[in-house]
Amino acid sequence: MRAVDIIRKKRDGHTLDQTEIEAFVTGATLRSWPDYQVSALLMAIVLRGMTPEETAWLTGAMVRSGVRLDLADLPGAKVDKHSTGGVGDKTSLILAPLAAACGLIVPMMSGRGLGHTGGTLDKLESIPGFRVGLTLEEFRVALRRVGCALIGQTAEIAPADKVLYALRDVTATVESIALISASIMSKKLAEGIDALVMDVKCGRGAFMKNRTDARRLAESLVAIGRANGVRTEALLSAMDAPLGRAVGNALEVTECLETLRGHGPSDLETLSVALAARMLRLGGAAQTDAEAEGKVRAALTSGRGLEKFREIISQQGGDARVVDDPRRLPSAPERTVFTASRSGYVSRLDAELVGRATMVLGAGRDRVEDVIDPAVGAMLLAKPGDAVRAGDGIVELHYRDPSRLATALELLSQACTIADEPPAAAELILETIR
Amino acid sequence: MRAVDIIRKKRDGHTLDQTEIEAFVTGATLRSWPDYQVSALLMAIVLRGMTPEETAWLTGAMVRSGVRLDLADLPGAKVDKHSTGGVGDKTSLILAPLAAACGLIVPMMSGRGLGHTGGTLDKLESIPGFRVGLTLEEFRVALRRVGCALIGQTAEIAPADKVLYALRDVTATVESIALISASIMSKKLAEGIDALVMDVKCGRGAFMKNRTDARRLAESLVAIGRANGVRTEALLSAMDAPLGRAVGNALEVTECLETLRGHGPSDLETLSVALAARMLRLGGAAQTDAEAEGKVRAALTSGRGLEKFREIISQQGGDARVVDDPRRLPSAPERTVFTASRSGYVSRLDAELVGRATMVLGAGRDRVEDVIDPAVGAMLLAKPGDAVRAGDGIVELHYRDPSRLATALELLSQACTIADEPPAAAELILETIR
Repeated sequence: MRAVDIIRKKRDGHTLDQTEIEAFVTGATLRSWPDYQVSALLMAIVLRGMTPEETAWLTGAMVRSGVRLDLADLPGAKVDKHSTGGVGDKTSLILAPLAAACGLIVPMMSGRGLGHTGGTLDKLESIPGFRVGLTLEEFRVALRRVGCALIGQTAEIAPADKVLYALRDVTATVESIALISASIMSKKLAEGIDALVMDVKCGRGAFMKNRTDARRLAESLVAIGRANGVRTEALLSAMDAPLGRAVGNALEVTECLETLRGHGPSDLETLSVALAARMLRLGGAAQTDAEAEGKVRAALTSGRGLEKFREIISQQGGDARVVDDPRRLPSAPERTVFTASRSGYVSRLDAELVGRATMVLGAGRDRVEDVIDPAVGAMLLAKPGDAVRAGDGIVELHYRDPSRLATALELLSQACTIADEPPAAAELILETIR
Repeated sequence: MRAVDIIRKKRDGHTLDQTEIEAFVTGATLRSWPDYQVSALLMAIVLRGMTPEETAWLTGAMVRSGVRLDLADLPGAKVDKHSTGGVGDKTSLILAPLAAACGLIVPMMSGRGLGHTGGTLDKLESIPGFRVGLTLEEFRVALRRVGCALIGQTAEIAPADKVLYALRDVTATVESIALISASIMSKKLAEGIDALVMDVKCGRGAFMKNRTDARRLAESLVAIGRANGVRTEALLSAMDAPLGRAVGNALEVTECLETLRGHGPSDLETLSVALAARMLRLGGAAQTDAEAEGKVRAALTSGRGLEKFREIISQQGGDARVVDDPRRLPSAPERTVFTASRSGYVSRLDAELVGRATMVLGAGRDRVEDVIDPAVGAMLLAKPGDAVRAGDGIVELHYRDPSRLATALELLSQACTIADEPPAAAELILETIR
């Protein structure tokens, strides 16, 4: 089976069979296919697409390029959640402890932030001492003791994805539903989970800007999970404005602690509880939706979720005193408030532009090698729908380097629209894809 | 200007501007673009296409990647002919001397055979001593002295084409009208010609199997020539059966000598004269089509074409005695005749399969590094339309290695159809694209 024949077949719009897809993934991973053949096929896939079967085979081959964890020795259902990425999207730090407190095993491998979106690993690392770089053996120990661990992807997991992603990034072959969903799912399936809840973000601050694309991605993710024996559902959730009020790593950890105390912003609490409830349902820890939500809310109001988060921090080497004293988290020396230029209603607070404003201050990275500042970020003092008067604060920026402030404020002024009438009430959870 | 942005633009179906195309060609040639980016863009071009303007810019950039000959110091119009490749397609060896005998300068850079099609350089090298590897300075001297030289492409000519072609061959990005025509025309335009006649082959033995594709390629070639200041026309000619009766290098040289003596097969003579006449018209050496054809026929019947071929051979170091004594050309030790299995009319003699039969015997190459045997080949004893009786010879194979004979004969039996009725008369010259 020659690489050039496989490339030609996809170029001409035909469906590849499982053997051909396996040859491609193996060739790319072991470098027996030169990069120029891999990238030619990637471009043909972007422009010709892949059937659901092809995408499932691609994902399976990428999983088999590395280690697939076997967690069968741990009692209980193994369930994870994954988000396609947003601004202020910190639900993992809330729902993972809640789901574990309800008896699930949550083996969560997360990513770092890139561009305007944040990453779970960066948020956790703002907790002094917290180690996200556990070995697979340490991961297993943590899961057995605590029922939940949040770590980075290890080198053994889906090495094919690393090779393909590096090449996609420099050959304009990122934007493909098939390639995006195979990349996401190969890492999730390798975790050895029984079930998976996907949070597919949709809107101005999300990778998928419109409902149609978001739904197509969600359907692809769900189909791949199912084809590979993992019960998978997806919620489509709005990402037009930031989720919650905090954007920036330490600020978001603080907001998660407040939410686990029952005092979080309502959108963040609603979405975190909904996702955790889906995890319980898919993991078989509840027989009805109402029972699932009831269990999650009980873990929240009883403080068991907060206690589970404390255990997670301790197990992974972090300073668990932050739970009771968030002032132990890094904080920025300077603050300034972006104010309303007129009276009216906040009708828009563009998530991507708010994300970029905090990135400019050092909260995120342009390139993977950039160093981030865990302390900087933004607190939203008003959210879309809120009435404001001229001069009222809308966003409080936490910053260190004054030279970056002007750019951040300019981005905020682009991000924010104030109108005479309140905007139509926005839905948070748009639909469920099963 | 980042490579990834140029790739993305073409991926999304947009038109590249001249600066972007120049950056691509320069990047590919100087290797400042890694191969994986070049191949990703090539695949996007194959699937998204290029406008005539983009294709002309691409060609121009490929010409500028190397030397463009300046032959202004030579008196007379510089005119070349190029064929897209066929089986038994030996017109260059006939029309180049004829056109030069009529006063044109014919600076012809040709290629080698690949797959089932033959190449002018391989044919010429069957003449003992003939050197196709002249330097550009030797080329210029030969043109001044003889008015015609037939050589291989030198390293100075369109180096971008070498890089791109090598990559296209292994990434399934050969089949693109834009890339094919830019590759052909970049080498032709670099010859420093005033005019060019293209022979675009169409049919079972050609790269373009149908009339629509052949016409599209011809139109693209003509447009590129015109956009780059070279008067260009294309004839579409049939390539369903081999042209003439000889297939194989030395056998074809012998047939060319016979044709230059006025005793060639009529299809070969007709096409060679027609192409040479177009060269005269485009080069301004005749004011009407009738005058052009009259001049070419006069060169043929007077023997001036044959004498010019003798001069060419001598100038390029070949043994000119082959002109009077073709037995000095290599000949194969063994012969066998493929015969008609039934009586009737030869209705089909598939050029590609006949070409492959001679390739199996060693007349052609599968890969560029294969060594060819100049002596082996096939002589067609019957052509489509001829009446045959069972047992009559259809093809005489000239071979050396008996172990390859069975495969060659099997291919001939697939190539040949005998029917009760004679086939409809086939047109040779299908149309002219101006």
